[in-house]
Amino acid sequence: MESTAILTEELVELAKRARKAARTLSTASREAKDRALVAIAEALRAQAAEGSPLRAANAEDVEAARAAGLAPALVDRLILDEPRILGIAAAVTQIASFEDPVGEVLGMKQRPNGLSVGQVRIPLGVIAMIYEARPNVTVDSAALCLKSGNAVLLRGGKEAARSNAALGELVRAAVTSAGLPADAVQIVPPSDREGIRLLVGLAGKIDLVIPRGGEGLIRFVTEHARVPVIQHYKGVCHLYVDEGADLNMALRLVENGKLSRPGVCNALECLLVHESVALAFLPRVGKLAAQGLEIRGDQATRAVIPSAKPASTEDYGQEFLAPILAIRIVGSLDEALDHIAQYGSNHTEAICTRSYERAQRFSRAVDASCVLVNASTRFNDGGELGLGAEIGISTTKLHAYGPMGLESLTAKKWIVFGEGQVR
Amino acid sequence: MESTAILTEELVELAKRARKAARTLSTASREAKDRALVAIAEALRAQAAEGSPLRAANAEDVEAARAAGLAPALVDRLILDEPRILGIAAAVTQIASFEDPVGEVLGMKQRPNGLSVGQVRIPLGVIAMIYEARPNVTVDSAALCLKSGNAVLLRGGKEAARSNAALGELVRAAVTSAGLPADAVQIVPPSDREGIRLLVGLAGKIDLVIPRGGEGLIRFVTEHARVPVIQHYKGVCHLYVDEGADLNMALRLVENGKLSRPGVCNALECLLVHESVALAFLPRVGKLAAQGLEIRGDQATRAVIPSAKPASTEDYGQEFLAPILAIRIVGSLDEALDHIAQYGSNHTEAICTRSYERAQRFSRAVDASCVLVNASTRFNDGGELGLGAEIGISTTKLHAYGPMGLESLTAKKWIVFGEGQVR
Repeated sequence: MESTAILTEELVELAKRARKAARTLSTASREAKDRALVAIAEALRAQAAEGSPLRAANAEDVEAARAAGLAPALVDRLILDEPRILGIAAAVTQIASFEDPVGEVLGMKQRPNGLSVGQVRIPLGVIAMIYEARPNVTVDSAALCLKSGNAVLLRGGKEAARSNAALGELVRAAVTSAGLPADAVQIVPPSDREGIRLLVGLAGKIDLVIPRGGEGLIRFVTEHARVPVIQHYKGVCHLYVDEGADLNMALRLVENGKLSRPGVCNALECLLVHESVALAFLPRVGKLAAQGLEIRGDQATRAVIPSAKPASTEDYGQEFLAPILAIRIVGSLDEALDHIAQYGSNHTEAICTRSYERAQRFSRAVDASCVLVNASTRFNDGGELGLGAEIGISTTKLHAYGPMGLESLTAKKWIVFGEGQVR
Repeated sequence: MESTAILTEELVELAKRARKAARTLSTASREAKDRALVAIAEALRAQAAEGSPLRAANAEDVEAARAAGLAPALVDRLILDEPRILGIAAAVTQIASFEDPVGEVLGMKQRPNGLSVGQVRIPLGVIAMIYEARPNVTVDSAALCLKSGNAVLLRGGKEAARSNAALGELVRAAVTSAGLPADAVQIVPPSDREGIRLLVGLAGKIDLVIPRGGEGLIRFVTEHARVPVIQHYKGVCHLYVDEGADLNMALRLVENGKLSRPGVCNALECLLVHESVALAFLPRVGKLAAQGLEIRGDQATRAVIPSAKPASTEDYGQEFLAPILAIRIVGSLDEALDHIAQYGSNHTEAICTRSYERAQRFSRAVDASCVLVNASTRFNDGGELGLGAEIGISTTKLHAYGPMGLESLTAKKWIVFGEGQVR
């Protein structure tokens, strides 16, 4: 109990310092913020080569992870080598080149009583990022929060503790060199889940929590949060191939959606095919087995693709994160819409069609953060949609829905200019 | 325990029916939604006269409230007489005349790969309103949610149970007559706080909870919610009278801010006066005692207004909801900004100034949902800011900050039109 009490005080202290820094940051000029970002990128480049304090800290993390028997894929995500560090530096440089979202004035209009009324973009305040292994998230998040005038508390995974501490030092020194408060960016020491519970319980002290990681982490944060949370749950993405669709295009969308990067959240998980094109289309999908695709289909699908495994009910609505595709044959667009409403995850949904009317109906009726007509589900990504950078993909509708860029890290306050008006 | 279990099932059932209705509503035409609103207004007018089922139900509520010894001001808020019912009908008719926010397409642009990418406004889904005595909130909320394509669960106070049930029946019949699902609007039977806890715990089943009422209710909802909440906390509004300000204007802003309607959230609670104008200005404020104003000031204030009571530390940061004004003399704009950062409630803050530079600094540095230059705090109101109608005033920054109109009841989903593009 005692150590918990100390931890709470520590977290409250971090949050208080963040709040103070946030107040300064909220009116910082774009020039000062960009100077900090450029300094971060320079410091990263200066520490990219082997033997730097950053590389040494990271080597310790990697060694400890290997010694603890962490899966090779997870160890790989921890590694900061020269190309990766230069890549992170390039991303920070790019963020410096973006427009400052803060201060943008929207919809300024004159009211009948002569008041000028509009809204102006402001930072949210103090943001807590809670994430797992990848240390690049530390710098990306710090850069996006700085640019949007927010103070950030970074709570990364235990495995990357030394790397994150070194990155934190580097970033804080760069921020200070630009004349901004170091506490704009603070590293929260990793702890057990209890520490996360305390952090997300700081009602009024933190303005937003963004968890990034597995579904377990996100559910834990949501369950215990007393501050607003933007969730990024799984992506169970569907493609509906409509009656009369261009089947060459449909095959390209399946191949790209499922096989270009099966482990990401905008990968295709389930193919819905109108019965009128099933016979012509599905054998072509079946041939993707040569590229390693495993198909799990309903009875009608297996009649056309004999090699397909039977789909269990769990296969619908599942995020495989692997080259596995669930397939179902449907009798109508409505049946496809019902399937998506039941099994979709509000992430990304696509239709392949030649029909104007059905394209319109699909894009209106589907509730997902991104709805695509005749395009790959893989396009639901901040960079591809033109946001430049993203800090997460929200699958809940409050505040942000879909990829979150700099603008999603701001709010709008009302501003009124008068000449003494009263009501 | 048994009755709680039954209640949970009942609430889940209500939420499920709301979800189903929300799916239909999300693609309903503006014409159908407006038809429902017009039918609601007509039904209200038809039941405005004494003896109608609505008036009879309301009379029972009022009688029970009087018998229970409810304060006269609270009893008054319960009453639905003919002018009030006609007023509610007029508000609904006005909401019908507003543009439909759903379907608006924003920022559609072409990407280098030829994809057309934009965002489209969609309803949030299922909204739960939790509120206290006033039965007009039942109809206002139903109308705003209908217009924005959301299904709503209305959980009003016990005192208004019969009135709300009657209004619910009237609204549901009108909705049905317009060809929309009755479950778009459902009345949640009032219960104890445990019932509220269960309602706001329905994660995934409700998209947004909006509590309207006393601070106790809002804190209770925030503490127990597992779904997003938009809070409307108290309004502790300040006016800073700057060095060199137009003192006639300043007096008008004080009088209007404090005395026009002391019981509302955008009323003025604290006056900050620059020391250089204190001697000329404060005696004029002191004369407002003739209009019933009670002043509580710091020592410097009391030196200028001898009749002022001494301000305790609790008087700063307090929402008096009465003709009481806290006053403090400050040495600079910075001191005023510090005071507001410490004691303000992020609701409404105003400056009276002739200085361009200080007007700019104040409006940038103050963190409040509405910042006013040379205008009364009373203007922080959906109608006055041009939103038409409001469903609440958010004092937290996520999703909405300040008065929430129809647009605040929507989200934006990404929409992508392609010709077979892949990554």
